Amino acid sequence: MNLLLLVPEDFIGPTRVRIGGRRLEEVNRIGATTLRAGLIDGRMGTAEVVATGELEVHLDSDPPPALPLTLILALPRPKVLNRVIAGATSMGIKKIFLINAWRVEKSYWKSPKLDHLRDQALLGLEQARDTMMPRIELCRFFVPFVEELSVNGVALVAHPGATEICPRDVQQPVMLAIGPEGGFIDGEIASFERAGFRAVSLGPRILRVETAIPALVGRLF
Amino acid sequence: MNLLLLVPEDFIGPTRVRIGGRRLEEVNRIGATTLRAGLIDGRMGTAEVVATGELEVHLDSDPPPALPLTLILALPRPKVLNRVIAGATSMGIKKIFLINAWRVEKSYWKSPKLDHLRDQALLGLEQARDTMMPRIELCRFFVPFVEELSVNGVALVAHPGATEICPRDVQQPVMLAIGPEGGFIDGEIASFERAGFRAVSLGPRILRVETAIPALVGRLF
Repeated sequence: MNLLLLVPEDFIGPTRVRIGGRRLEEVNRIGATTLRAGLIDGRMGTAEVVATGELEVHLDSDPPPALPLTLILALPRPKVLNRVIAGATSMGIKKIFLINAWRVEKSYWKSPKLDHLRDQALLGLEQARDTMMPRIELCRFFVPFVEELSVNGVALVAHPGATEICPRDVQQPVMLAIGPEGGFIDGEIASFERAGFRAVSLGPRILRVETAIPALVGRLF
Repeated sequence: MNLLLLVPEDFIGPTRVRIGGRRLEEVNRIGATTLRAGLIDGRMGTAEVVATGELEVHLDSDPPPALPLTLILALPRPKVLNRVIAGATSMGIKKIFLINAWRVEKSYWKSPKLDHLRDQALLGLEQARDTMMPRIELCRFFVPFVEELSVNGVALVAHPGATEICPRDVQQPVMLAIGPEGGFIDGEIASFERAGFRAVSLGPRILRVETAIPALVGRLF
């Protein structure tokens, strides 16, 4: 935990908070008397432990800038979903659509992990020292989702078979779509292309989604 | 499994292999009669299932090019070590040094996972459709390791506090050092700098090692 995240309900005075549970355990484990803290969707600064579970906070700075990226992700297998959400959040992504695709197994949509995406996003914020929660939306129908997308800026769909190599250092907002294991099928790529997306590749290697997202983000920004 | 990896012992004829165990299960699970195959540290091509566990192989192409990157990694916690090795291998990294550092917990060096790094590298090759195994070395002593490094090309140590931002699109071989959770301590950064490394950052966000490696690789190459 690189940042203690607070909610308005933690405040027992204008600059005084009381915490319990996992966060208190973490604060005790770290053992420091002063640590970094931030209010979810608000400012950040420091917190000083004044009693067990009570801290005096001083929030005087802004969170780091958001990444101008909208991530459109075929719902990953439950086993990796948690760390994909935490990882994407840690990089500053603020808009994530989890969508269906031909090669997304139907059972993934029933995973109980879908009920805990917010917790994973919080872990990502704590990791990266950020306070601004991402918006995560589930879209179970591929065609209407893609047809209703309004593309502005650069729109890319990662596709190992594409001949165009992913651009780098893009100075505009980006929409980036990443397929399931095995990739989007041709019809899905065509749908994205009709919506204004360009199919791009990172080369001949096929990467797992949890590797591909940071690799693409590192290249794009 | 995007590539069936073979070893010389699998061959029962010049172009005929027999496989069992996990690989046979995977081939059966995929259910295809033709699949991509490659000989570890050799060429790749296709394999056709001719009987249960028997395939006729035709290896006529080279593996994808290696990434000109030497990764120097403070030994990660055992929980993430497997996927860090598989992920780094999938990106084409061929030289990985796992080193000690002040903030590496001593117990990590006793993890049984250290005995199975080769298996994780194989998973990375299977994922990325590559055949060339990385060389992975364990270096338990920080100071002699860094002092004996012979730097040529660009040498960078990732350090969240650095003022220089990580360069992009580097057209040279790179040595990249990444610290443990909490980072390298100042003395360690100074050792790297004496050895010719530049401390660079990816911005104010602190990323987990499994996110930082692909983000840095995506940016550098």
